[in-house]
Amino acid sequence: MHAEGRAARVAVEEARHRVAELLGTRPRQVVFTSGGTEAANTASWGAARARPGRPFIVSAVEHSCVRESSSRFAQVSQLGVDHRGRIDPGEVEDALEKCEAAGEPAALVHCQAANHEVGTLQPIEEVVELCHRHGVWVHVDACAAAGHVPLALDDLGADLVSVSAHKLGGPLGIGALVVRRGLRIEPLVVGGEQERSRRAGLENVPSIVGFAAAAASLADPAQLEEESEQARRQSEWLRAAATKVDDVELLGDPDPAGRLPHLVCLAVGGVEAEPVLLALDQAGIAAHSGSSCSSESLAPSPVLEAMGVDAERSLRLSVGWSTTDSDLVAFGSAFAPAVERLRSLRS
Amino acid sequence: MHAEGRAARVAVEEARHRVAELLGTRPRQVVFTSGGTEAANTASWGAARARPGRPFIVSAVEHSCVRESSSRFAQVSQLGVDHRGRIDPGEVEDALEKCEAAGEPAALVHCQAANHEVGTLQPIEEVVELCHRHGVWVHVDACAAAGHVPLALDDLGADLVSVSAHKLGGPLGIGALVVRRGLRIEPLVVGGEQERSRRAGLENVPSIVGFAAAAASLADPAQLEEESEQARRQSEWLRAAATKVDDVELLGDPDPAGRLPHLVCLAVGGVEAEPVLLALDQAGIAAHSGSSCSSESLAPSPVLEAMGVDAERSLRLSVGWSTTDSDLVAFGSAFAPAVERLRSLRS
Repeated sequence: MHAEGRAARVAVEEARHRVAELLGTRPRQVVFTSGGTEAANTASWGAARARPGRPFIVSAVEHSCVRESSSRFAQVSQLGVDHRGRIDPGEVEDALEKCEAAGEPAALVHCQAANHEVGTLQPIEEVVELCHRHGVWVHVDACAAAGHVPLALDDLGADLVSVSAHKLGGPLGIGALVVRRGLRIEPLVVGGEQERSRRAGLENVPSIVGFAAAAASLADPAQLEEESEQARRQSEWLRAAATKVDDVELLGDPDPAGRLPHLVCLAVGGVEAEPVLLALDQAGIAAHSGSSCSSESLAPSPVLEAMGVDAERSLRLSVGWSTTDSDLVAFGSAFAPAVERLRSLRS
Repeated sequence: MHAEGRAARVAVEEARHRVAELLGTRPRQVVFTSGGTEAANTASWGAARARPGRPFIVSAVEHSCVRESSSRFAQVSQLGVDHRGRIDPGEVEDALEKCEAAGEPAALVHCQAANHEVGTLQPIEEVVELCHRHGVWVHVDACAAAGHVPLALDDLGADLVSVSAHKLGGPLGIGALVVRRGLRIEPLVVGGEQERSRRAGLENVPSIVGFAAAAASLADPAQLEEESEQARRQSEWLRAAATKVDDVELLGDPDPAGRLPHLVCLAVGGVEAEPVLLALDQAGIAAHSGSSCSSESLAPSPVLEAMGVDAERSLRLSVGWSTTDSDLVAFGSAFAPAVERLRSLRS
């Protein structure tokens, strides 16, 4: 009721417009959360509470927050992927029919928009269409994809969509769950009327505004395309530099149209990932093995396992709006000598 | 494994030390969350999962996030308060014994450190001691108290304690759940190994560092005492100015030793809270009616209801480290004329 509160409210609602615009949806459908992980947990919780006792269908390459929030709230029917990391809509339909035949139609299908480790785009339009034909809700984890490829969520029609601000240039600690018009799910975090009673807790106004600033800079399709084109060019450069080295294989979809523009995932033969990461770090390159959200975990990546790849040897690079050509050159200079030195130590 | 990741890790762990120091606990016990609301929800969830089917004991003056997260995970036995808003440890013990007699010993007692609306300090030492005698866990919501009165959580021995950064001068969107040594509870948000697998999601590093900066500025007991003393002086000034007006009553504990230093809660006879808030806003004063976390809600405050106060007429003021004496004067000049004008319009 006071000026400070009204200013905060205006800032939050303007931010909601900016985020909705980037995602091709209406502001009312955007529920701010503390990040993509909370958003995905909320999707699982909401579907399990609304449709208790019914199974979830989850692909093997979903993010750990999707897989783990599913398996504690529901029986999970898991779908495999092909060697590019892509799910097959036919298998989704088989799983839906199997659940129906068992007398327990699925509550929810989790289908990511794009994979967070190898960048493979998933056939979300087909999956949404066939799930809705079966009366089953779909949650699309768009954390890896949002801001990197165009999304038109109202056209897509998914019931629930998760996004994360920091994956598209915004701050840490903020994200959103986009809830289809007319759908009501029980919140995961309760005890306040914020976000139209869909997520309790005093609004994280500065982070919401930061999220919106990042979203606004990508809401113009030409700007998003320009950033994606730069990312594509830079990631192609990295792919070319990496595969000049013997026994380095590109993981994911070999077709650029089938993957995110900014991720590169490599299988490096004959060396462990860890010393390669250390050598790259010494050259100023921050690279990854596996998912950024599982850096505490020593277990092999389930994504690469599902694709049939030896996860011990995978290396993940990503480029962003702030990546410069000299960053690429630094990788190019460091990678080959590091791999060769490590291989010579082993032989 | 890279320099950027190591720097973030160091920043987060240093922040954990600062927050632990303020709270009188060990860094390993501090789990960062997206705020006090998530922390309290996690406490309810964790106790309900660890001790399924057993009731919770919850006072009527707990924050809505405590009450609502309790009632959806457990049967709730509610405790009343006296006219100052204070719970009676004898009633807690009666409730514990009643649960035992019914063959369902309580899973958890929720007992706030201090009330968030009227500032009344609660007898948490006695409550923790008697709950532990009965083998029942205690969650202390310390969101209103932390940073305003000294807390020595390891000495207190509560099983779970929630704190919120923005309530003590830190940023929005960050808080912590302090988990007693040796206690394992199931996380509310899953899907990553962050926070020793107690809270998934990429760490909100900037907000954690901001939380720590606020905590560090209060970790020296002399500094906390100095800020509290200023708050006490300023809030006494506000109380004196407000009660110069006829039919204005102070709510909460009349003894300054029994309440938080920075909160003032008033019952203003013969007017609605809303037009008073608007008049104060015009004078540059941001005041509240009810809880700041329930600004969307039009329902009367359950805290004041439990104390037997007509919630329509309550007005809440708080002072903070940035409050100046000229802010006080602005209140003093605006309050009496506003109340008198509103009363004359009604008569």
